[in-house]
Amino acid sequence: MKFINELKFNSDGLIPAIIQDAEDNTVLMMAYMNKDSLKATLETKKTNFWSRSRQKYWVKGESSGHTQDVKAVYYDCDADTLLIKVIQHGAACHMGYRSCFYTQVHNDGTTEIIAEKIFDPDKVYKK
Amino acid sequence: MKFINELKFNSDGLIPAIIQDAEDNTVLMMAYMNKDSLKATLETKKTNFWSRSRQKYWVKGESSGHTQDVKAVYYDCDADTLLIKVIQHGAACHMGYRSCFYTQVHNDGTTEIIAEKIFDPDKVYKK
Repeated sequence: MKFINELKFNSDGLIPAIIQDAEDNTVLMMAYMNKDSLKATLETKKTNFWSRSRQKYWVKGESSGHTQDVKAVYYDCDADTLLIKVIQHGAACHMGYRSCFYTQVHNDGTTEIIAEKIFDPDKVYKK
Repeated sequence: MKFINELKFNSDGLIPAIIQDAEDNTVLMMAYMNKDSLKATLETKKTNFWSRSRQKYWVKGESSGHTQDVKAVYYDCDADTLLIKVIQHGAACHMGYRSCFYTQVHNDGTTEIIAEKIFDPDKVYKK
């Protein structure tokens, strides 16, 4: 996987990965990968991340079952951002929404939740 | 713009902004904003960024004329990433491609440029 050496990981050894629905092009989430989680993503064809808040590896869907099947991987002109197209099982957002980007900012600065929850996080994560 | 105080800017005072085509949902680029460039983006309805490499404000299209008209602004569940839908004039990428994500990684780790240039950077930027 020679291309990995061409990528620019940040000072924490991470690169942001934009996750996009392969079918309708919805941007589902953004999370961070280090070299090992990127390699695991390419090998398993399931998205793997590095959690900055929990400081641990994280297979997307490991708790919820809402995994992401990798369909295509791209990187940008600066080689410092990944774009990964996936088939999303269930929902991408731990809050229960299909996409993490469910809050819209209006012109007057007010915000609005523009999506419906498709699962109940309390039930899925068994809090 | 009260919501700006709810956003989580990183230790450099920056927040990543995913820029998506409002018409066909292509992910065009990702760049970074600080509070002032986000405010300028909301006020002028043109994307403004903070260049980490040049350490300066940057109105997208200031050199090329390839500006982005802001159509909708969202932030994610963690309030640490922006998603901005735009009408792109010309092309988003300084390399001449419509999207910065013109390099695809294949299963065997080889890479391929999967787009055609729509302008010649040497002519547009008058190098």
